[in-house]
Amino acid sequence: MVRWSAGGDMKCRKCNKPAVINLRQHKMALCAAHFLDWIPDQTQRFIKKYQMFTPHDKILVAVSGGKDSLSVWDILLRLGYQADALTIQLGIDEGLNYSVESHRCIEKHIRDFHPQAVLHTIDVKEIYGASIPEVALRSTRGRDKPCSVCGLVKRHEMNRIAHELGYQVLVTGHNLDDEAAVLWGNTLNWQMQYLARQAPVLPADQPGLARKVKPLFRFYEREMAAYALLRGIDYIYDECPFAAGATSLQYKELLNQLEANSPGAKMQFYVRFLQAKEKGLFNLADEEAQTLNECERCGQPTSAQGLCAFCRLWNNDPLPEIIPLEVIEER
Amino acid sequence: MVRWSAGGDMKCRKCNKPAVINLRQHKMALCAAHFLDWIPDQTQRFIKKYQMFTPHDKILVAVSGGKDSLSVWDILLRLGYQADALTIQLGIDEGLNYSVESHRCIEKHIRDFHPQAVLHTIDVKEIYGASIPEVALRSTRGRDKPCSVCGLVKRHEMNRIAHELGYQVLVTGHNLDDEAAVLWGNTLNWQMQYLARQAPVLPADQPGLARKVKPLFRFYEREMAAYALLRGIDYIYDECPFAAGATSLQYKELLNQLEANSPGAKMQFYVRFLQAKEKGLFNLADEEAQTLNECERCGQPTSAQGLCAFCRLWNNDPLPEIIPLEVIEER
Repeated sequence: MVRWSAGGDMKCRKCNKPAVINLRQHKMALCAAHFLDWIPDQTQRFIKKYQMFTPHDKILVAVSGGKDSLSVWDILLRLGYQADALTIQLGIDEGLNYSVESHRCIEKHIRDFHPQAVLHTIDVKEIYGASIPEVALRSTRGRDKPCSVCGLVKRHEMNRIAHELGYQVLVTGHNLDDEAAVLWGNTLNWQMQYLARQAPVLPADQPGLARKVKPLFRFYEREMAAYALLRGIDYIYDECPFAAGATSLQYKELLNQLEANSPGAKMQFYVRFLQAKEKGLFNLADEEAQTLNECERCGQPTSAQGLCAFCRLWNNDPLPEIIPLEVIEER
Repeated sequence: MVRWSAGGDMKCRKCNKPAVINLRQHKMALCAAHFLDWIPDQTQRFIKKYQMFTPHDKILVAVSGGKDSLSVWDILLRLGYQADALTIQLGIDEGLNYSVESHRCIEKHIRDFHPQAVLHTIDVKEIYGASIPEVALRSTRGRDKPCSVCGLVKRHEMNRIAHELGYQVLVTGHNLDDEAAVLWGNTLNWQMQYLARQAPVLPADQPGLARKVKPLFRFYEREMAAYALLRGIDYIYDECPFAAGATSLQYKELLNQLEANSPGAKMQFYVRFLQAKEKGLFNLADEEAQTLNECERCGQPTSAQGLCAFCRLWNNDPLPEIIPLEVIEER
């Protein structure tokens, strides 16, 4: 186990032993054992409070091999939920080994902690004939913003697999820093329809879209890093090489400066936004939201006419055999 | 004149001579002479576009001796508006000389540029018996946040003088950086009623409140600093000593980092906010806004019952003779 210290003579609030982490925004320090219990306890509290899902739901967790996705899967399994996982092989490897390393972490996590767990694996290149770097290079959008192409592919595939395999809920590992950075980006541009749609729980309000849930949205990134380290989860440390310089990382850095000056500010920014939404702040934008069409190629909902953005990526090739079950590796 | 250079071989877009300032967000560089014309031209454009005031209005400009307030007064006079000024002596002097120095700059500006201009001067201590530092020390709020007490006093006195002397419009020198920092603070907390009220033009929709206008709200702070320097306006450079560490300065710093990464981001944040408001984003909060009462002591509108926050500052002493014309120094 990693040796940590919360600094100074901090004591755990629950047992008075030396603390390993100081949660400034909660004015609370905890020892390793109590922190490792506190995280699932809090998660359970938020699952109920925000009505995310119940023990009866079949949950699909999107795992990348990073600390957040492995931790959320771990936490949901510890809490006894029916949580299977999906990993999407992106092929971000040439000289970088990112996808290979991420898959190694996922496999190791299963061996170390949850040998009975179910993991579905799909490989973008095997199914569609091109890896993420390859398909990104095909378009100006992709060359400028490979992360946007990657996000598009992952969202599409998560929706598709959840739908085909009958999962009611799609879980992602987004933490508070992720959500606050997206919120900051949307607010900077006052992008009303994005603001209207940003939430820790997105209902499955369109046919073909799974309910999307972010059970870690109330935890800071450093809390999730601490959870993974203290729990002994081996995760991929590096950011994806394509994410360097991404505006979301700049926004996180700015929000962290703000947080350093006023502990809790980052949390308050996001939580008060949710409260403002509850009061109806963005109803107007939501009412104006366009109705979605069905993509002519894959059938998923899209705001476009004809082909959805995902299908436009593939040069209008005919879609491969849908849901290639043979490349889904079930354990 | 200060020797500036926009760097490299930048040329003025209007005359092709060497430029002194590069306006990255406008993708335009200008020489000193054209920049000194561009600022009033743009100001005039915004006065019309946002229907701020007309040449028939009697305008009272609040001047502090800083670059923004002296510049906005200078610009309005150059444009031919009926713009008198009001300065409020705050008594921030002990060992600091802030208020004395600010008054020296105002006097010098009048001598140098507008010897016929009208300046009203009031002194808080002469009227109410205590300077800003003295009154701030009386309350916990004031000790923690002297800027909030100072702002409260200035707003009250500006309203009072404008009303008593029959000015239709109160002008302040707030620039885009000021407005964006306030917006960022309000957005961080999703303070709906503040967001609903934040605007470059606040109508005189309550009896006893003057119309409040910020003609510089589309200019960056560095543009206003450049205007004052190139025009040769002698202004007080230092921030008020009480403002050190103010959250608004932290917010400005964060927004400047954002701007450095994406030129125009700061402007876009504020302008798109105004567009969202035009679409009715904060109508809900505005409808919920409480109706105002009349302060029992001074008669100004207040959200409180009984005394307004300004009158509560003065320990419930009876108000001195209202509008002490003898301490208004008219030139």
